[in-house]
Amino acid sequence: MTKSSTVDLVTQTDQKVENLIIQSVKQKFPTHRFIGEESVAAGEACDLTDAPTWIIDPIDGTTNFVHAFPFVAVSIGFSVNKQMEFGVVYSCLEDKMFTARRGKGAFCNGTPLQVSAQNDIKQSIIATEFGSSRDPEAVDYIFSSLRDILCIPVHGVRSAGTAAINMCLVASGCVEAYYEIGIHVWDVAAGSIIVSEAGGILTDVDGRAVDLMSRRIVAANNRTIAERIVKEIRPFNPPRDDAPPQQ
Amino acid sequence: MTKSSTVDLVTQTDQKVENLIIQSVKQKFPTHRFIGEESVAAGEACDLTDAPTWIIDPIDGTTNFVHAFPFVAVSIGFSVNKQMEFGVVYSCLEDKMFTARRGKGAFCNGTPLQVSAQNDIKQSIIATEFGSSRDPEAVDYIFSSLRDILCIPVHGVRSAGTAAINMCLVASGCVEAYYEIGIHVWDVAAGSIIVSEAGGILTDVDGRAVDLMSRRIVAANNRTIAERIVKEIRPFNPPRDDAPPQQ
Repeated sequence: MTKSSTVDLVTQTDQKVENLIIQSVKQKFPTHRFIGEESVAAGEACDLTDAPTWIIDPIDGTTNFVHAFPFVAVSIGFSVNKQMEFGVVYSCLEDKMFTARRGKGAFCNGTPLQVSAQNDIKQSIIATEFGSSRDPEAVDYIFSSLRDILCIPVHGVRSAGTAAINMCLVASGCVEAYYEIGIHVWDVAAGSIIVSEAGGILTDVDGRAVDLMSRRIVAANNRTIAERIVKEIRPFNPPRDDAPPQQ
Repeated sequence: MTKSSTVDLVTQTDQKVENLIIQSVKQKFPTHRFIGEESVAAGEACDLTDAPTWIIDPIDGTTNFVHAFPFVAVSIGFSVNKQMEFGVVYSCLEDKMFTARRGKGAFCNGTPLQVSAQNDIKQSIIATEFGSSRDPEAVDYIFSSLRDILCIPVHGVRSAGTAAINMCLVASGCVEAYYEIGIHVWDVAAGSIIVSEAGGILTDVDGRAVDLMSRRIVAANNRTIAERIVKEIRPFNPPRDDAPPQQ
């Protein structure tokens, strides 16, 4: 099936996995709240409050999943007082389990992760995505920003097709930065703490403090790289994840 | 070290692997010819003749290799009378060995490969790369073509960072098509027979017959998809692989 556009896919598997996760957690923590991609698509509220909240993307990279493209992830983040406490991203086909807990570091299959030490943008790989919007104005902004970043020049640009794995690639030091406008909180909640616990930083695409509900993110190995790509990004504002539903 | 530009990387490993492969083959087949990425970079001729010729990219995805990005391949193709007889692409970090022999099918770790059966471009994923040229005119053409393909619209665009693995993704049915202008014969020789033996097709970016020395390629699951993306590609002509060296 499709959601926001003909290229925004959802499968029965997304819904089944989300239901499985939420039901399992609810049994142990009946008072906790949930923000799940498919629950929100089905009409549930998407509010990040101070309550303990599980933020779930049952399949990040649904398009990859449909096509058997080898990057598909389950992403689960947990926040209290609007601060991420832990995050887990499981890259299913790679069989890599990325985990991070606040103050305790980030790991892949138990091995500590560390972001790249690179300070030179010209020696960097940048990950980003074209997203599922085909709105001409958004596409203009996305292409213009990407072109300017490519021609800094950087070593390369990669698109894995999942925000969660792109963020784990930052945490692993395989790419220096990932940025995107149009993602949702469930795409990046778990990844955000994995990046920060691996020594990386998060900002908004305009360089200000990150806001996980704003649908805009830069995840980078350090502030030098983040600030350099922010210079080239033309920001725009998709409707926030916590915006009231359209009439 | 860098080659054609500050983003065209080569490592000692590329040179060592190529030397290892060529020396091993030469011992068994002393009369065969070779086209190897690093030998050509070192000044050897890049002519595809009727003689039995091994076409070698010791590390396809050198930038990925330098950054530990998980797509890195060794690519070896073999041609006689300018026709590919077999090809092998080993995706090292995924531990996937892609093989194909003319008339005998294509395989990944021994399992037969088959391209996607999709005929609808709007249900397709397309792979491409931004390449290592940062020449503004080439970048214009690359971005213009990519934007038009994205907005057909297709399900998505992916960039793995290696031509050889992009072609194996076509052969595996994970993406419907891959196209690029600027690749070299060693990037696509092995992949070309893996795609065709998996049931896919190869064309030039203008829809005419493919020419592996022309630095332009479309590899697709079928002619319908190939022809649809060819409509959106703005062709340009990098210097051919077999062009006489510039004075």
